[in-house]
Formats: sequence, C-alpha cells, structure tokens
Amino acid sequence: MTPAAQELSPGEPRTVVIKVGGSLVSDKRSDDHIDHDALRDYAALVAALATARPGRVVFVAGGGALGHGAVRTTDAPGPHALLPLTQATFRVKWAWAQALCAAGVRAMPLQVAAMAREDAGGVRTQTAVPAQLLRSGVLPVLSGDCIVTADGSLRIMGSDEVPGVMVAEDFAPVRVVTLTDVPGILTGTGHDSPVLRHVDPDEADPAGAFFWPTASWDTSDAMRGKVQALAGHARRGAECVITQGDRRARSLMHLFSPMECWPDDVPHTLISRVPAAI
Amino acid sequence: MTPAAQELSPGEPRTVVIKVGGSLVSDKRSDDHIDHDALRDYAALVAALATARPGRVVFVAGGGALGHGAVRTTDAPGPHALLPLTQATFRVKWAWAQALCAAGVRAMPLQVAAMAREDAGGVRTQTAVPAQLLRSGVLPVLSGDCIVTADGSLRIMGSDEVPGVMVAEDFAPVRVVTLTDVPGILTGTGHDSPVLRHVDPDEADPAGAFFWPTASWDTSDAMRGKVQALAGHARRGAECVITQGDRRARSLMHLFSPMECWPDDVPHTLISRVPAAI
Repeated sequence: MTPAAQELSPGEPRTVVIKVGGSLVSDKRSDDHIDHDALRDYAALVAALATARPGRVVFVAGGGALGHGAVRTTDAPGPHALLPLTQATFRVKWAWAQALCAAGVRAMPLQVAAMAREDAGGVRTQTAVPAQLLRSGVLPVLSGDCIVTADGSLRIMGSDEVPGVMVAEDFAPVRVVTLTDVPGILTGTGHDSPVLRHVDPDEADPAGAFFWPTASWDTSDAMRGKVQALAGHARRGAECVITQGDRRARSLMHLFSPMECWPDDVPHTLISRVPAAI
Repeated sequence: MTPAAQELSPGEPRTVVIKVGGSLVSDKRSDDHIDHDALRDYAALVAALATARPGRVVFVAGGGALGHGAVRTTDAPGPHALLPLTQATFRVKWAWAQALCAAGVRAMPLQVAAMAREDAGGVRTQTAVPAQLLRSGVLPVLSGDCIVTADGSLRIMGSDEVPGVMVAEDFAPVRVVTLTDVPGILTGTGHDSPVLRHVDPDEADPAGAFFWPTASWDTSDAMRGKVQALAGHARRGAECVITQGDRRARSLMHLFSPMECWPDDVPHTLISRVPAAI
C-alpha cells in the first residue's frame, strides 16, 4: 500500500507525521479541557489526508490541557511521579481516535510508553505495530507520554519528541509537520511578523535569538523546546516544518508536496539539513 | 535484579505472570463496574509479592465488566469494530496501576495492542519495554486488548491469552497463574467438588469433558477458552495454574515455590508438559 522510496517524486515524503498542537484544541491554562468542535474540524482534515494517502500518515496529539495538567498536578515526587501522564495522554489519544474514526478513517491509539524506552544509549523504539497498521491502511494515533529510563525512573517524552519514534528507515523519507498557534518561528513580536524560513539543525542554538519568553503555565518550554526536538529529528534525516493550524483550511494535501511547491499563503519554518530550493 | 536461570532452585520460576480474573473484582453482568475494595485487597497481595521478588512479577488484569461491556456494546460491524476494547481495558489497567502504586510498588500500565500484533505466522510481540521495567523493579500491568491482524482488522486478545506475550526466553522459566472464582477445573457440579490436578496441553481437547455450560453473558467462553489459552502457553514451555483467588489470603509467596511445595489447602489445576512430582 505504501510506495517504495524510488516510486516517490523528488521532494515527496513517504510518511507525514502530523502533530496538532494542544493549544489548537484546548486551553493549556485549564487542567481538563478539550474543544471538541475544533478537534472535530482538525480530525476531518487529517482523515481526508490519510484517506488520500493511506498508510502514509501518522498522527500525534499534543497533550494540551490534559497532558500539561497531569504534569502540573503531580505532587508525589520520586522516580514514578510522572505516571499519571500516560493515563492523561491516553484519554487525549482516545478523544482524537474517536473523532478520526467518526471522520471516516480507521484510527488506533498507541501508547508510546509501551513502544519506547531510554537506556544508556538513548531512546530505543519498537515500531512493528505502527508499521503493520500503516501497511493495513490504519492511522496510528500517538501522543506525548512518560517513558522508562535507564535507571527505571520515568521521564516525559513530549509530543514534539514523539515524532522521532517514526523517524526510521522503514518509514523514510519522513516529514514531521507540527501545526501550532503561530505561523512558524516569528522574527518579530507580533503574530503577523515574518517567520524564519529555514533553520539549520546543526546550529548549536538554532534560531535562538528569535524566541519569545515562555509562559509560566507551559511545561513544554514553548517554541524553544519544540525547535530543539525537531532539530533532533532533522539531524536523523527528517524534514520538519512548523506552521500554523487552521481548522477552516480546505485541505492538508500540500503536506505531501515538495517544500518548494507549498502554497505562498502558508508561512512556515523549515528545519532540515537541506533547505528547500526557492 | 532478576536472577539468571541457573541461580533458581529446581522448580522455581524466574517470572510469575499473575492474572486476577475480572469476576473477582467486578460483576461481568454489569457493563461498568469495579469493586474497588476487592481490587485494593488483591493489589496489596500482588504488591507484596512483587516487592519480595522484584523484577519477577508481571500483572495481567482480567477485563471484567468494563472489558466485556466494551465488546458487548460494539454495534458498528467491520474490521475496526473492536476498537473500544483498547480504551476500556486501559481504564481497567489504570485502576489496577493506581491500586498497586497505592500498595507500595511502582506499577505501570502497558497497552498490549502497542506491543503485539498478528501476521500470517501468528502472534508477534515486542517486549523490550516490559523487560526494561522488570530490570528496573517496576511491575508491568497488562490486560486483554484488541490487536491488529494480518488483514488489518482487529481481533480480541483475551486476558487469558495475554500472558503469552511474556512467555519468551528473556523471562523463562515462566509460570502463569490465573486467579479465578473456582479452585480449578471442577470434576463435579459443585464449587466444592474435586479439581483436576493436571492437564496435558498436548491433548486435543484438554479436560474437555469437565466443563460446565458457559453463561450467555460471558464473552470469554468461560473455562474452555481459558484452558485452551493456557494450554497454548504450556506448549511454549510455561507452567500454567488455575486456582481460586482469595482476597483475604495471607500471602501469594507460594506462587514462586515448586508446584510440589504448594500448600495442601490450595486446590489448583496445573496445565504443563511436565506434571508436578507428587
């Protein structure tokens, strides 16, 4: 069902990992909120994309209010303190899976904590289940989670880090697209200021000068953490894009187009080793 | 933390997979019921066992009311109809994980659907996460689930089948103990009738003559399905035991004893290729 790499057009990804940021479907300042209308709109867009490109789309749900709330409300310290995050983000995945199924695709939530762990060598993953789902035309639904580390303690794997689970030869070339509430890395202070077109993932502090201060209620360290996570995926060969989500968009089909063919009215920041030919 | 096979006493399992049947902590005839008092009692017993034998206990939660309810209430037919089971059984795992953590162990729910799949060659599993949890002294909490099959449809992997995920060289020798509401395979019609002591898993219909009729509300086909699942694990080298759960028991420590050393007042049916020396 999925094409071999040599059957792809130049610049066309085989797999698109699309993350819808929690800020688009919830208010992170609340601990338990999902905007089901917004979620339904985004689910319809993602379902249409997955239907048009079966076996080539992976969905990642941002934690939003539930995920951030679970981390903020953790009061028992210790190596296992983050455990509630796996339950909270399973609820988020389930809300998305239901909305995606209602929009006409077979979607399946998968607990990242059961597929990924960290040992002395870094993050290790086992992805035979999502691979088989993709071969079967089923849309895997992932999210941030807590994963076990080398010493047995749990750590957060944020939803910007999670696409890295799918950055592997089996799925390459991979494009990671994060839809968020800003059009990219802004070069000014307003939402309408120009965005940085390209970030080199091998820079020590990619685009660091441009970050705005992080809001105190945001546990993901906002844009700086996002760029660091995406730069990591880019160093492993993925093409990563930050762009603004629009629940009223007509389509997301351009996510499979070569970067140089994206519509002019879709500002975005590309994080990749090879900048798009302009 | 876990001993090498050669450090074990004769007849001592390295890993005990303990399943607490849903019937012990819920009423399967209801769709949404957990007896939290019973669950707390069993969790205390399992936590004590896992604390005494760190890294050597795996817990499997029976689906009970929530699991059976999710399957019964599925109304949309088709290859994806069973999807609600993965959400329902995650709730069951979460209830157990919370009770086990409250009883003093670090327990972690793991979605079996993210670690197991079925292809033309049968069930395939990836168990690096539960292996790392065990090495770290964390108690994996599994349950029945729906897994993807070779044609992309979902099928039920019942909680009696799930211990098979852990029947592997990494964890061997493995003993699977299912605590249920009867003391084993009864040879008569009453709960106090003698139980079959041993079942040969290579028999075509192990102990078939002894099964009582299945209640219509039980989607797991009661004892017959349980014995078939356990016979499958036994053919792969596990020692499988059916015995009655007792939430007031003083301890579960005998689960690590050689079978011939089990207390006389614990009737049970053993399903294994090698019968216990009596």
